[in-house]
Amino acid sequence: MASARFLTLKSIHGTSTHTHSLRPRIQISGKVRAFCALMSPTSTAVFYENHGPPDTVTKIIQLPSVEIKANDVCVKMLASPINPSDINRIEGVYPVRPPLPAVGGYEGAGVVHSVGSAVQALSPGDLVMVSPPSPGTWQTHVVKDKSLWHKLHKDTPVEYAATVTINPLTALRMLEDFVDLKTGDAIVQNGATSMVGQCVIQLAKLRGIHTINIIRDRSGSDEATEKLKKLGADEVFTESQLDVRNVKSLLGNVPEPALGFNCVGGNAASLVLKFLRQGGTMVTYGGMAKKPVIVSTSSFIFKELSLTGFYLQNWLTSDKNEECREMLDYLLGLIREGKLKYNMELAPFSEFHTALDKSLGKLGSQPKQVIKF
Amino acid sequence: MASARFLTLKSIHGTSTHTHSLRPRIQISGKVRAFCALMSPTSTAVFYENHGPPDTVTKIIQLPSVEIKANDVCVKMLASPINPSDINRIEGVYPVRPPLPAVGGYEGAGVVHSVGSAVQALSPGDLVMVSPPSPGTWQTHVVKDKSLWHKLHKDTPVEYAATVTINPLTALRMLEDFVDLKTGDAIVQNGATSMVGQCVIQLAKLRGIHTINIIRDRSGSDEATEKLKKLGADEVFTESQLDVRNVKSLLGNVPEPALGFNCVGGNAASLVLKFLRQGGTMVTYGGMAKKPVIVSTSSFIFKELSLTGFYLQNWLTSDKNEECREMLDYLLGLIREGKLKYNMELAPFSEFHTALDKSLGKLGSQPKQVIKF
Repeated sequence: MASARFLTLKSIHGTSTHTHSLRPRIQISGKVRAFCALMSPTSTAVFYENHGPPDTVTKIIQLPSVEIKANDVCVKMLASPINPSDINRIEGVYPVRPPLPAVGGYEGAGVVHSVGSAVQALSPGDLVMVSPPSPGTWQTHVVKDKSLWHKLHKDTPVEYAATVTINPLTALRMLEDFVDLKTGDAIVQNGATSMVGQCVIQLAKLRGIHTINIIRDRSGSDEATEKLKKLGADEVFTESQLDVRNVKSLLGNVPEPALGFNCVGGNAASLVLKFLRQGGTMVTYGGMAKKPVIVSTSSFIFKELSLTGFYLQNWLTSDKNEECREMLDYLLGLIREGKLKYNMELAPFSEFHTALDKSLGKLGSQPKQVIKF
Repeated sequence: MASARFLTLKSIHGTSTHTHSLRPRIQISGKVRAFCALMSPTSTAVFYENHGPPDTVTKIIQLPSVEIKANDVCVKMLASPINPSDINRIEGVYPVRPPLPAVGGYEGAGVVHSVGSAVQALSPGDLVMVSPPSPGTWQTHVVKDKSLWHKLHKDTPVEYAATVTINPLTALRMLEDFVDLKTGDAIVQNGATSMVGQCVIQLAKLRGIHTINIIRDRSGSDEATEKLKKLGADEVFTESQLDVRNVKSLLGNVPEPALGFNCVGGNAASLVLKFLRQGGTMVTYGGMAKKPVIVSTSSFIFKELSLTGFYLQNWLTSDKNEECREMLDYLLGLIREGKLKYNMELAPFSEFHTALDKSLGKLGSQPKQVIKF
């Protein structure tokens, strides 16, 4: 954790003097560890001292070595994504965020560089991911307790390991947690080109569930439609194509969906509601348009719709850690088998601020940016 | 049923000629019933041939006698309310409504006037209510199948019997069907002066559940507040009193509510959402302001609110009839014991159109109008 790194740094300086004055003689063998502390390499990090616009408050700095304690693992990072929630944390608007100052990032994967004296299950060279996600992954070397690292199959593509928790796991849980879907059922979603959207299409397809997908009107929407259909999408519509009296007349052989996913808000959320069948459920997991969801009284009373939200953080608690890692291994297995894939753009760490600008939407629509260290 | 009455009327005319031509001789004793059909009195009714504004499309007419068939019961009506859904049915905007032409009204109570030959459980003089509610109660004499009449304790106040299903039952079910409330919990509702609102306060109080009540800003809101507090309301606020940064600071000793009821929409619905605790549920059962419900993305994701609707009609199906009647008897028992009461204004049938104008809001805020025949 970034702030922990700083606190550690200060405490190292404090205690090292203290230690010297108390213990004049360095002993050889077993006890030497206590005095010659195992230290991490220095780390190049995306650092911020204040909340604000991410492109102005973040800077790349060099952090000093930190002590690798008995249960710590030091990982040389290989990949870490820029997620919308990372941006919101830097802006200071995300409810769960690290204290300042902080290093950005929350998800990531890398290889073990060195381990503390009490670490048995991990060794240098092991491929690992941060699990559950936790602050400070946008840096070259991360030191965290062993419980926060999950060992991976060596053939796992590192950019997928770095991104599998926040988005694909959201897709998996949303398909499981709200409506008991059966083969042949359908779901509807907006923001279908998002990473979650792409995963929803593929994970639904694997279960024989149809998907109705809503995307924005923009140049390139034909290509986007083609891409989603190649992933297994049954129907893809732009918002303007749905500006018709009865959207359900467009469903063809796809049944009316019992479940809808909304990560946009505003009109795109209303379109999801229009597609839902009597008694259907819409799950909101994002608000890209920064517009609220608007629902008529009759949608509640006569169409009997239910609206609820999905917050992945509730799955990332310590008591669900084992269950979560099993799901991540399942998803990474699908990825290794080529059954689950999604668009990413790999950005060298040296070009972090360009990748950040792309994530902020300053350079038009762009795929998910993943930093490669 | 009004339309049934008309169909019956036509078919009587049709078959009576037919009968005459086929059966020249009238037999005495047992079989006489088949030829000398038991007939209802003529009925004075609120009748409409087309959908439209209720004050212009309804007229009072005299309907001819109809046959009382073997399983029919003819009831001299004593009381029937004007509910918003009755108005919406006449306007043609309510999804469940009788075919045209029709007699208005859906709830009501009266005394049995005469019964068909196969009716055992009801006798002339019995106090009964229409259960489940069904079309055509705004008339002096109603003929319906015996299964649609529920016999009542003779001491039941008739204006309560006539109104207990649509509003008090809604209050009872909404307190039961969505959140497992325990003694000491709280709920929040808007439209608290409505009949449902008054019942929610009293039924919650009987279970030791606190109520936070939101009412409109209008002259007389102080008196309305006093009335609701006398019914057992813990807190009563006008909408403008809630125009503060943190509505929860107004809660005092009342806990944050897990459940909210919305029958208004717009700002009044947003206020219910503001009061709800983390993970709370808002149930929409009406939309008096004719404005939609607006919900922020963060309410779904971070506050984990769920929104759903309540539609009483789902409880008024034949397979739930027995269960429903038990609940109605429970509510009518509370009423007889003085534990449940609500504001009504009794209107003589001769002044129906004044009562209708009051129900349409043309004469300012008025209590529920109940026609007395």
